[in-house]
Amino acid sequence: MKIQPRTLSGFMELLPRQQMLMESIMRTLRETYALYGFTPLDTPLIEASEVLLAKGGGETEKQIYRFTKGESDLSLRFDLTVPLAKYVALHYGELAFPFRRYQIGKVYRGERAQRGRFREFYQADIDIIGDGKLDIANEAEIPAIIYQTFSRLGLRQFQIRVNNRKILNGFYEILGLTEQAGEIMRTVDKLAKIGPDKVNALLTGELGLSGEQAGEILRFIGITGANGEVLEALEGYRGRCDLFDAGLDELGTVVKYLAAFGVPEENFAVDLTIARGLDYYTGTVYETFMTNHPEIGSICSGGRYDNLAEYYTDKLLPGVGISIGLTRLFYVLNEQGMLNTEIAAAPADVLLLPMTDDLSPAIALATQLRGAGIRVQLYTEQKKFKAKMSYADKTGVPYVVFVGEDEIREGVVACKDMATGEQTKLDVARTLARIQDGLTKRRDGAVILE
Amino acid sequence: MKIQPRTLSGFMELLPRQQMLMESIMRTLRETYALYGFTPLDTPLIEASEVLLAKGGGETEKQIYRFTKGESDLSLRFDLTVPLAKYVALHYGELAFPFRRYQIGKVYRGERAQRGRFREFYQADIDIIGDGKLDIANEAEIPAIIYQTFSRLGLRQFQIRVNNRKILNGFYEILGLTEQAGEIMRTVDKLAKIGPDKVNALLTGELGLSGEQAGEILRFIGITGANGEVLEALEGYRGRCDLFDAGLDELGTVVKYLAAFGVPEENFAVDLTIARGLDYYTGTVYETFMTNHPEIGSICSGGRYDNLAEYYTDKLLPGVGISIGLTRLFYVLNEQGMLNTEIAAAPADVLLLPMTDDLSPAIALATQLRGAGIRVQLYTEQKKFKAKMSYADKTGVPYVVFVGEDEIREGVVACKDMATGEQTKLDVARTLARIQDGLTKRRDGAVILE
Repeated sequence: MKIQPRTLSGFMELLPRQQMLMESIMRTLRETYALYGFTPLDTPLIEASEVLLAKGGGETEKQIYRFTKGESDLSLRFDLTVPLAKYVALHYGELAFPFRRYQIGKVYRGERAQRGRFREFYQADIDIIGDGKLDIANEAEIPAIIYQTFSRLGLRQFQIRVNNRKILNGFYEILGLTEQAGEIMRTVDKLAKIGPDKVNALLTGELGLSGEQAGEILRFIGITGANGEVLEALEGYRGRCDLFDAGLDELGTVVKYLAAFGVPEENFAVDLTIARGLDYYTGTVYETFMTNHPEIGSICSGGRYDNLAEYYTDKLLPGVGISIGLTRLFYVLNEQGMLNTEIAAAPADVLLLPMTDDLSPAIALATQLRGAGIRVQLYTEQKKFKAKMSYADKTGVPYVVFVGEDEIREGVVACKDMATGEQTKLDVARTLARIQDGLTKRRDGAVILE
Repeated sequence: MKIQPRTLSGFMELLPRQQMLMESIMRTLRETYALYGFTPLDTPLIEASEVLLAKGGGETEKQIYRFTKGESDLSLRFDLTVPLAKYVALHYGELAFPFRRYQIGKVYRGERAQRGRFREFYQADIDIIGDGKLDIANEAEIPAIIYQTFSRLGLRQFQIRVNNRKILNGFYEILGLTEQAGEIMRTVDKLAKIGPDKVNALLTGELGLSGEQAGEILRFIGITGANGEVLEALEGYRGRCDLFDAGLDELGTVVKYLAAFGVPEENFAVDLTIARGLDYYTGTVYETFMTNHPEIGSICSGGRYDNLAEYYTDKLLPGVGISIGLTRLFYVLNEQGMLNTEIAAAPADVLLLPMTDDLSPAIALATQLRGAGIRVQLYTEQKKFKAKMSYADKTGVPYVVFVGEDEIREGVVACKDMATGEQTKLDVARTLARIQDGLTKRRDGAVILE
């Protein structure tokens, strides 16, 4: 009796060519994060439930994968932030602050399975954790990292939208609406979906605001334009609330350093409708949208928070971080046909076909090419020539090299460029040069095509 | 009330510097496997228990992390072979054979926790799967991959020991001991530990073999020497059993191609005591030992098998594969002080210290250096100079760059080499060249030191 092989629904399992693209994306993330001085971290996928659920409550507890093993109550991590908080609290004495780490890892949420929703998915997080304090320049650097990351992946049409929670909270304080600020922001968040009239109706209806208050709010979130224009309009509110003024200073600093950080104006916008949750974030907040695909939602979000590890330690550990939902992003890019299947998606650069009984010359050639950094697959199966070439086609290998009696006698190798069909008979050094040249050109492409 | 932060026992969680070394090892493995045409694979950590336990029974079921979520009976993978079998059976029609894949991933076994034993650990596997058949040249290539992998990691004193199950099974067939072969091999396996006399006593005692049979066995496993000598001695048994003869031919082929594959004689030995389990392997088997640390046991093992996915499909899928227990290897290397802490263990190449109120010039310099591939951390916290330099020491960053009013006016930057203490004031281009030069020299080192 055979067991039917299957992969659980909600769990992404890629075929080799797609996996190569995913690896390419991960490599780009690792390299980009490293450029900004982030250190890689790897924490267990399983933690004590008590530790993971220290904050407790809400959706988290319902979705979590929780189980017992022996006497231990264990859970799979549902994000990378809680394990980071545990890590920093636990290893506090051995870390240097600010502590900058990136982590690309799988997390688990038992959501209802539906198309494009995953129960096991990669998150790619970066965070900068301060000890007691953290300078605003760190918040200013985040848009540069987001910009570099997506640019290096090949994305062009995207915008990083930034706001500051102090500005929002300060504004509602000015209106005397501090206690209702949470509810109001949730309502205002619907602006793009339902329009200003319906937002106005909700504010004055359900939330019981005066027409004047609702008008102030709509006027405020209606402030748009170039970054300079938005900042100038916000200056009009200065002097009425310390929190607001502090937030405006911070936002000004973030905008001021954009150019020095190499972020083009068109990839960045101050957007007063961005709020990002209600309690956790306390300063700059970030969302990132693909300009031509607003329906996808934010592909990279985060913000400044004041206290990373309050459930584990009395130490004040403020930080700023962003997260990419990598599995979902990959899924979406694939659905949109935006992945560049031309680049390095084959497992080898060269398929080497020995045409002699004694494989020694072919093996020695494979060893030589590998020594030069060429990825070589030696194909020695007893198949017809046609089947061998069909294998080359199927794997997408760019070059096929043949080593036969004639070639060995003449001191050359035959090499076929599978893209052009062109075949050469050159000595090893010149064949190698030709292959290296071709590979360099192929590797130019980015993984995302727009 | 605070929750005590902790990491579960049996779960490795590294500090940043060690994590960097682990990343370096993983990068070397990925690059080496890719050179041989292996494609990366990533499968879910959770599978349906029915699928994962298709083979069932034994230690596996006791150690497995198994739980229910909703109505699903789920398990964490305990190795990477069963998920590979599922993957190949499930995606059979979409793969090109031979299918060569590598996978570096975490697996879970609820073993009793003790020093150096892990419940969550990385395995690094490569396998080559054929469709119906698989040529012996693939088995001959494996020692080359093992040799390259450990050489690139910096290991020198290691030996790949190889045997062939057909030779063993054929030999016991010649002696008329086929049914007892399993028990005999388990006993013979103790040779290095308990010596030939005690093995002889066990064979003639517990196992009830004749003195003559035991003598034949001890003579056989006593065949040692250079590869050519061992093969010659084995020729003396030829012609008495087809299975033995086939195994001897295969072993001869593996040895024949070693030189062409670039494996030095001293890193390879035919070893008739290597057996590797009883049922699964059917051809060449491999173990790898650190010559100066035999107590560690094999650090890379595997072999040829005839039927990868028999529990899922009628397709005959023979293969050959090897596995490195990466977490344990890392633990052991660390314990032995064999990890090279000199190499790239800092999260950044340059710590950039702005000495001006306006950070723009420092940020622009950071952006420029990053554009040249230098990993730069901008340090903007309001701390005393001494605290900043102590941060540089703690993170191990090799260069500190200062940008002050004087430097900006003179068009230079100050750069301190933290290893030598030498400080330069040069323009950006020359500072960059100096840093790049120094980094190139640093990166020469391998991650393992012997």
